[in-house]
Amino acid sequence: MKIAVNTGGGDAPGLNAVIRGIVLAAYQKGWEVYGIKYGYRGLVDAKQIIRLTPEYVWDITNIGGTILGTAIKGDPFNFPIEKSDGTIVETDISDSVVENFRALGFNALIAIGGDGSMRIADKFLKKGMPVIGVPKTIDNDISSTDVTFGFDTAVNTATEAIDKLHTTAKSHDRVMVVEVMGRYVGWIALHSGISGSADVILIPEIPFHVEKVCNKIRQLSLRGQEYAIVVVAEGAKPVGGDITVVENIKPGDHIRLGGIGRKMSEEIMKITGKETRNIVLGHLQRGGAPTTFDRLLSLRFGAAAVRFTEAGKFGTMAALRSTEVIAVPIEEAIGQMKSVSPESDILQTARSLGISFGD
Amino acid sequence: MKIAVNTGGGDAPGLNAVIRGIVLAAYQKGWEVYGIKYGYRGLVDAKQIIRLTPEYVWDITNIGGTILGTAIKGDPFNFPIEKSDGTIVETDISDSVVENFRALGFNALIAIGGDGSMRIADKFLKKGMPVIGVPKTIDNDISSTDVTFGFDTAVNTATEAIDKLHTTAKSHDRVMVVEVMGRYVGWIALHSGISGSADVILIPEIPFHVEKVCNKIRQLSLRGQEYAIVVVAEGAKPVGGDITVVENIKPGDHIRLGGIGRKMSEEIMKITGKETRNIVLGHLQRGGAPTTFDRLLSLRFGAAAVRFTEAGKFGTMAALRSTEVIAVPIEEAIGQMKSVSPESDILQTARSLGISFGD
Amino acid sequence: MKIAVNTGGGDAPGLNAVIRGIVLAAYQKGWEVYGIKYGYRGLVDAKQIIRLTPEYVWDITNIGGTILGTAIKGDPFNFPIEKSDGTIVETDISDSVVENFRALGFNALIAIGGDGSMRIADKFLKKGMPVIGVPKTIDNDISSTDVTFGFDTAVNTATEAIDKLHTTAKSHDRVMVVEVMGRYVGWIALHSGISGSADVILIPEIPFHVEKVCNKIRQLSLRGQEYAIVVVAEGAKPVGGDITVVENIKPGDHIRLGGIGRKMSEEIMKITGKETRNIVLGHLQRGGAPTTFDRLLSLRFGAAAVRFTEAGKFGTMAALRSTEVIAVPIEEAIGQMKSVSPESDILQTARSLGISFGD
Amino acid sequence: MKIAVNTGGGDAPGLNAVIRGIVLAAYQKGWEVYGIKYGYRGLVDAKQIIRLTPEYVWDITNIGGTILGTAIKGDPFNFPIEKSDGTIVETDISDSVVENFRALGFNALIAIGGDGSMRIADKFLKKGMPVIGVPKTIDNDISSTDVTFGFDTAVNTATEAIDKLHTTAKSHDRVMVVEVMGRYVGWIALHSGISGSADVILIPEIPFHVEKVCNKIRQLSLRGQEYAIVVVAEGAKPVGGDITVVENIKPGDHIRLGGIGRKMSEEIMKITGKETRNIVLGHLQRGGAPTTFDRLLSLRFGAAAVRFTEAGKFGTMAALRSTEVIAVPIEEAIGQMKSVSPESDILQTARSLGISFGD
Repeated sequence: MKIAVNTGGGDAPGLNAVIRGIVLAAYQKGWEVYGIKYGYRGLVDAKQIIRLTPEYVWDITNIGGTILGTAIKGDPFNFPIEKSDGTIVETDISDSVVENFRALGFNALIAIGGDGSMRIADKFLKKGMPVIGVPKTIDNDISSTDVTFGFDTAVNTATEAIDKLHTTAKSHDRVMVVEVMGRYVGWIALHSGISGSADVILIPEIPFHVEKVCNKIRQLSLRGQEYAIVVVAEGAKPVGGDITVVENIKPGDHIRLGGIGRKMSEEIMKITGKETRNIVLGHLQRGGAPTTFDRLLSLRFGAAAVRFTEAGKFGTMAALRSTEVIAVPIEEAIGQMKSVSPESDILQTARSLGISFGD
Repeated sequence: MKIAVNTGGGDAPGLNAVIRGIVLAAYQKGWEVYGIKYGYRGLVDAKQIIRLTPEYVWDITNIGGTILGTAIKGDPFNFPIEKSDGTIVETDISDSVVENFRALGFNALIAIGGDGSMRIADKFLKKGMPVIGVPKTIDNDISSTDVTFGFDTAVNTATEAIDKLHTTAKSHDRVMVVEVMGRYVGWIALHSGISGSADVILIPEIPFHVEKVCNKIRQLSLRGQEYAIVVVAEGAKPVGGDITVVENIKPGDHIRLGGIGRKMSEEIMKITGKETRNIVLGHLQRGGAPTTFDRLLSLRFGAAAVRFTEAGKFGTMAALRSTEVIAVPIEEAIGQMKSVSPESDILQTARSLGISFGD
Repeated sequence: MKIAVNTGGGDAPGLNAVIRGIVLAAYQKGWEVYGIKYGYRGLVDAKQIIRLTPEYVWDITNIGGTILGTAIKGDPFNFPIEKSDGTIVETDISDSVVENFRALGFNALIAIGGDGSMRIADKFLKKGMPVIGVPKTIDNDISSTDVTFGFDTAVNTATEAIDKLHTTAKSHDRVMVVEVMGRYVGWIALHSGISGSADVILIPEIPFHVEKVCNKIRQLSLRGQEYAIVVVAEGAKPVGGDITVVENIKPGDHIRLGGIGRKMSEEIMKITGKETRNIVLGHLQRGGAPTTFDRLLSLRFGAAAVRFTEAGKFGTMAALRSTEVIAVPIEEAIGQMKSVSPESDILQTARSLGISFGD
Repeated sequence: MKIAVNTGGGDAPGLNAVIRGIVLAAYQKGWEVYGIKYGYRGLVDAKQIIRLTPEYVWDITNIGGTILGTAIKGDPFNFPIEKSDGTIVETDISDSVVENFRALGFNALIAIGGDGSMRIADKFLKKGMPVIGVPKTIDNDISSTDVTFGFDTAVNTATEAIDKLHTTAKSHDRVMVVEVMGRYVGWIALHSGISGSADVILIPEIPFHVEKVCNKIRQLSLRGQEYAIVVVAEGAKPVGGDITVVENIKPGDHIRLGGIGRKMSEEIMKITGKETRNIVLGHLQRGGAPTTFDRLLSLRFGAAAVRFTEAGKFGTMAALRSTEVIAVPIEEAIGQMKSVSPESDILQTARSLGISFGD
């Protein structure tokens, strides 16, 4: 057996541990593993492909990022090709990718990536390529799995930052607005906000009123707490657009979104008169060594992908359900986004701790 | 409503966060919360009881241990009473505990503790006391919940230690034997061993052969790896008792167990001739601030216990199942221990990474 | 003896440990210690003064910020007084501060603060108030002491952030521009940049050429390193103003400065064509628990201040020289700023590691 | 120029960063650098020598241990040679080391090591070999430098452990005895004990009375503190030998020493009747990534060693004095051990915080 592996989309802590899990597990079965560089780009020219041996991956568990590189714009079904007149045209080059895959003698592809990568994997599957998926999302928005690797690390980084801001906020009687990742879902904001004892958490799932946020801050003040910590997911939005955030949003481009944290910071300062500061955590949340939790989960996903490959379970994706990693259909996984539900016990917990969502 | 809270058994990171979750959630409902000191001891004399206000618990999320203290020997059904002649007799004083509970006007008791504490809670339930349980175990051996607070922190501490030992082992071509907690189950050893890239993991569920452990170390040497990391759960046992560990084991007394790590260290040195060192992590695994994961889970368990109390679900215990905290019957929880199953994907992962279990 | 303590200026990790060091050391001598809240403000109305007992300060070593609060605008020699017409007039109210100090029976004031606070302390000294100083500066710009508490923590936070950005920069072939504190001196940028393996470090002491920074990034690219880490002190300035940063700078207001990191990020993207991201660490560098190094140094400074008080060394300030904490005249300390010298071995180290300063 | 580098003695966090500092600084001068494996052993057979390029060392700053390996028994002036009858005879093979050094065309040797390694370096110097030293000691016992790399990391590891033990000690009303490194000097115990709020610190420089340690614990109990933290350096000794620690001590073998922590634990339990637990940190203190402080200091030492080589300052050693790294004669450095002086402000600080030394 000869299998290929690639990583797509934004990087996440744990990608290298998944690769290590795959390579070591495959090695035990006597298989060969090859890494495709830069998502599917390495298969387009069939050149950027590297042999992955146990020695090569032995020490990479704790290294953030991905040794295979990744590509934000590299969908073979809409590949950016430069024409002779210099214009860029999105072209379907998927057939040549499939051809190269076969010509190189690969028996399976393990595609590690987010929702976008899983959609591409599903299309290749329908073209007859034997694909196994490993879900990757910092944001925790893939519905078929309880959680994926990278999320625990991101929450940890955000919580540590909130912890640090607490003491300086308190010393100076300031409001601190911390913008965390989460364009469509509020999981990082919710987890880090609760763990970090935030006073206000603003998430995309719950449109907020600026006035209610300011009321919460005033109430704290009446009780003697002259500082406040406001955690804002980058995709949080006010009800009816009472503040406007003008930013060009491009896919995979978290840091650019910015804006909402800064805007809220200005609004709070204006309305409450309190000194307010804004911090955008941005790429810090993607980087660094995976937490112990994420290391283990990544290795489990990698090892499971090899078991699924051996069992011929193509078209499935590794998923954590309760305490076990199982195979679920990729199609099911890309069906819907996992967002924060009003009934979830986590949201109830936040409210019962007195945290305001501005609603 | 007036509710009581206590913590029993060995301490675990997150106990204070559970207490905070309970107090803040109860406060929102207009309830009063009282902390019983030292397990049930505070109810025996009805004196060591403290009022828990939101202010009192505000900053305790990150503090390890328990502000209520705990008692290793404090089971009211077998309470150590000193007689006039100086002898200690275990006496059933549970009736007076129930009386005190009622006389103080409590409507419910939230008991945070391990398997032993849950058994006591169940007995009080049968005596008519309205009890809600919150499971606590560093070892992760309670079967009704996917995981409990404290475990992630303990695994993290053990993994960090293993990480540190790697570099020194490598520099000196040494074998390092790390003894971690786990008298009856091998979860901490398994999780930290995989995350920390151990070469050998020895757990109570899989009796091991000393010779096979040494063979693994010799194989590594042949491949050019002159050092090795062996993670041993304190309760791991060789097949047929080919090494003997003589220690007096007392309940709740992890560090005393010791022995197996030291013994294995000596055996490996003798058989392989390799310089070998032994580290016993002991109480380091219990202490310190909870990880972000444990902070959140603890707060969720605390908030859930208050919801279950309001709903009159007495006799149940908070449990994490997949992504939600639900109520499960305490009786069910104390029925069986959760041990590492040969079919679990985690064990398969370890084996596919080339880790030896000495079997 | 009855001594007073206050903390002034921006907060720094270790302030509480200094306070603890003072209180415990004074307690051993049978002295009483009182905390003046919010810099000198607490002495203006003589109301915001709290008794500091050993119990009160026992657990504060690891807590960031200051339990006494601080005041950015609270210089008694230029105190903002609101007139009846609503205008704010800066007034000299230092005499009433001295009167209150005496009326309350204080024998000495230990003033913990930065350059500004030391200047005020010096003025009070000349008015006959017995003052001992403890230097505080995140930026490490006080010349009379090898280093002060808070700096090691800030460098640590910045280095951890740079570490995290490395892996994501590498995975995406991006340039990351990290803006760190340092309005007038480049110590944090220099220490964290070297420790974090930055490619470029820009500091106020060395005016830089944008073009040279871009050349360095192009050179890395030629050698196969397609990403780069640029660490910029907030006060770094290009030669001849070839980029303009328009910001209103207010004293003590680090985060507002911003600008230079974002500007450099835009310039690099424009000139090199490389995808570039900008991170402003801001208040993260001030917050959180002090490192072990800062904890010890703070406790030593606190204990030394009490020894100096007992010896009547008023007008001096605690300073670390080599391995000992000694007393140096406050006047000497406020004479000059400690900036990065071209001859310092640290700067030579950075250059010999191949780090560019854009000069 | 062609220079050689080796690392000797026990490993310390930062060794790899020193190597990186040397290689990058030498590369800038157009020099070649070679690593001698296993102390001087690599020069004995002239085979275990590797070329060190900038690429090879680029990512090693944060890696603990040493990529060159080290040798505990490898002094060429007393080298263990196995005779034909199987006996080991210590032989002076230094001449052949010098010959190999010259035959390989080396212009200088940078020897990174502790007191023992510096003595060997000094002997080679006298044989005409151009040697520059870089001091290494976890224990901080080299007198010519304010501090060396590795010490800050070791103190940090010990302090984190003490922090963790605090909460569990408090929850269970226990005495925790933590044994840290320091056979001849108490620096690690002193720094970590103060930073970690220990109640008792026992160091080799101050012989202690077991009874006085127990009195301190009883006093704490009277004041309501039912737990205690005792930090013991492995080389601490009671006055007049009122407890006996029988252990075979071999050089470089810290963990074996053990004993004193366990003995003190048993004595305290016997005398005070308090539940007492013992933790031996051992190799944890040597391992892992260097702290930011140690990373920078290591890189500075490495870069300085290259500058000293260029300036022909053979026979000197890099040393930190106040804020600068300077060259000091190796002879001076090996003259005396740096032990804790009764007059040092650190010791005074500890006493003024109420910490007992059992004297």
